[in-house]
Amino acid sequence: MLNVLEQAAVTVSAISGVLAAGGKRVDLFGVIVLALVTALGGGTLRDVLLDATPIVWVENPSLVVNASGTAFIVFFITRWCAVPVRFLLIADAFGLALFTIVGAAKALTFKVGPVNAVVFGIITGVAGGMLRDVLLGEIPLVFRKQIYLYATAAFCGATVFVLLMVWRPDHSQENRVIGIGLTLLLRLASLRWKLTLPVYGQQSDHDSDPEPE
Amino acid sequence: MLNVLEQAAVTVSAISGVLAAGGKRVDLFGVIVLALVTALGGGTLRDVLLDATPIVWVENPSLVVNASGTAFIVFFITRWCAVPVRFLLIADAFGLALFTIVGAAKALTFKVGPVNAVVFGIITGVAGGMLRDVLLGEIPLVFRKQIYLYATAAFCGATVFVLLMVWRPDHSQENRVIGIGLTLLLRLASLRWKLTLPVYGQQSDHDSDPEPE
Amino acid sequence: MLNVLEQAAVTVSAISGVLAAGGKRVDLFGVIVLALVTALGGGTLRDVLLDATPIVWVENPSLVVNASGTAFIVFFITRWCAVPVRFLLIADAFGLALFTIVGAAKALTFKVGPVNAVVFGIITGVAGGMLRDVLLGEIPLVFRKQIYLYATAAFCGATVFVLLMVWRPDHSQENRVIGIGLTLLLRLASLRWKLTLPVYGQQSDHDSDPEPE
Repeated sequence: MLNVLEQAAVTVSAISGVLAAGGKRVDLFGVIVLALVTALGGGTLRDVLLDATPIVWVENPSLVVNASGTAFIVFFITRWCAVPVRFLLIADAFGLALFTIVGAAKALTFKVGPVNAVVFGIITGVAGGMLRDVLLGEIPLVFRKQIYLYATAAFCGATVFVLLMVWRPDHSQENRVIGIGLTLLLRLASLRWKLTLPVYGQQSDHDSDPEPE
Repeated sequence: MLNVLEQAAVTVSAISGVLAAGGKRVDLFGVIVLALVTALGGGTLRDVLLDATPIVWVENPSLVVNASGTAFIVFFITRWCAVPVRFLLIADAFGLALFTIVGAAKALTFKVGPVNAVVFGIITGVAGGMLRDVLLGEIPLVFRKQIYLYATAAFCGATVFVLLMVWRPDHSQENRVIGIGLTLLLRLASLRWKLTLPVYGQQSDHDSDPEPE
Repeated sequence: MLNVLEQAAVTVSAISGVLAAGGKRVDLFGVIVLALVTALGGGTLRDVLLDATPIVWVENPSLVVNASGTAFIVFFITRWCAVPVRFLLIADAFGLALFTIVGAAKALTFKVGPVNAVVFGIITGVAGGMLRDVLLGEIPLVFRKQIYLYATAAFCGATVFVLLMVWRPDHSQENRVIGIGLTLLLRLASLRWKLTLPVYGQQSDHDSDPEPE
């Protein structure tokens, strides 16, 4: 079950990697790399930092096939029809929630302590998208007000999950569901009500920010 | 023999790292880092992802001396004479072919399976140049139409090599030569006939793309 | 004692990470990531490349709390009062010196040989700031003439330290103090007298370079 969800999350993240290439004159290879980095970058960084061997996609190459196959198909499909962005945002919220809690749970099995487990959860959830943006020469979208609460949703979900695991480690399954649910809810709520974090160097909430989507 | 070829490939890649700094107001230290990253970045990333310890240049520090010494010399030489770009492109094609097949072969010794071995071959061949471009604030050249078939050459060469290793693992030496030769041929052919991959979001092959070299 | 100094160096580096976000429209999460990457990026990269497990901040999560707490406080403080940049530059020089020598010393315990130990010292000292700049979409400041001798100070300090460790390995404590002192002195001298490395492709020292601080 978790495996099916993980494959779905990888597919959604891969699509977001492809769409980020829009207007950048990137060729098919570039699009496939962007998809792979977006979908597997967070888990890869987590495993390298934890020294978890083999890393996630070396252990399970079907993730590589999934992400690059998705990229290949979407590359050609987007020539003929538009991608439903609204649907993608919701699917991506689900991917964020799943990756974050799975990442925090994996870190806990390496006995890294609660603070680090939260950090590893956030890394797993957001680092892939950050790497994608760096490859495109842009400041990571997750640092921007325009993405609304994204890393913050991951932070809250991971924190609650890790605290639950400390307090009642024998309800692992239930704790996971709560963590994923909370992250997902916060992310969807922030999209619905345009919740944001304050921006560095700006004091007012009423600043006349242009807000490109 | 392989060792001599590897040192030559490192030298050529280091030169390409130095030349990429043109017009960027990068100082001597920056040029040396760019050379090191270009020449050793792919092998380093491969070894970190494979958890191969020690990584390639820790095991063989002469590669560090080679790349940084090359950068130091080229830094000053380019003030007095031009670098023969055409020669460099051909030498670099050879480096791509060698790095790719050596990388795929190393991954196979870690029992990662054929799909991952191809991925590791491509990483070894192209990641160094990608890191160089990221450090220079640019979208990796290997994602661009203007580089012609580069990663694609590595992909084809690595795939044929890995399939040969699956089918006749006892002809390792011969398989390597075929893989390197195929990658090299494809790369040189793509330079000669300007073969490219399609670009994301562009439907026509006749688009009026400006093609800066 | 060394631990207190290390925490101080992390705090200073975290502040430099926050300040780099100026004018970039980065939100609170982005500022915290920039602080963490600047303060812990060099040590993290060193440990990943050395395959030192657990990496520095997994072993000592108080470094994560320190850097992110610093970022949180500075994020809000800078709305009300200016940061004393001159003081920061000097504090940062101390951080560079400490990180570089601690990094080279750690590498030596992994038996990497003298050339690599110097490389690992420089990586520990400067890679965090490089990663910060890459996340902000800029060419690393440490590649620029305007930063004066920075990596070069680390290189000289690390080289002298490593040579001392080869010649008299039983005076480890004293060798460290000399290495740190030399790096610090060189860095401060280069700030005072605006010492720089030559820039790629520029032959004259009298070129009319605009020198933004």
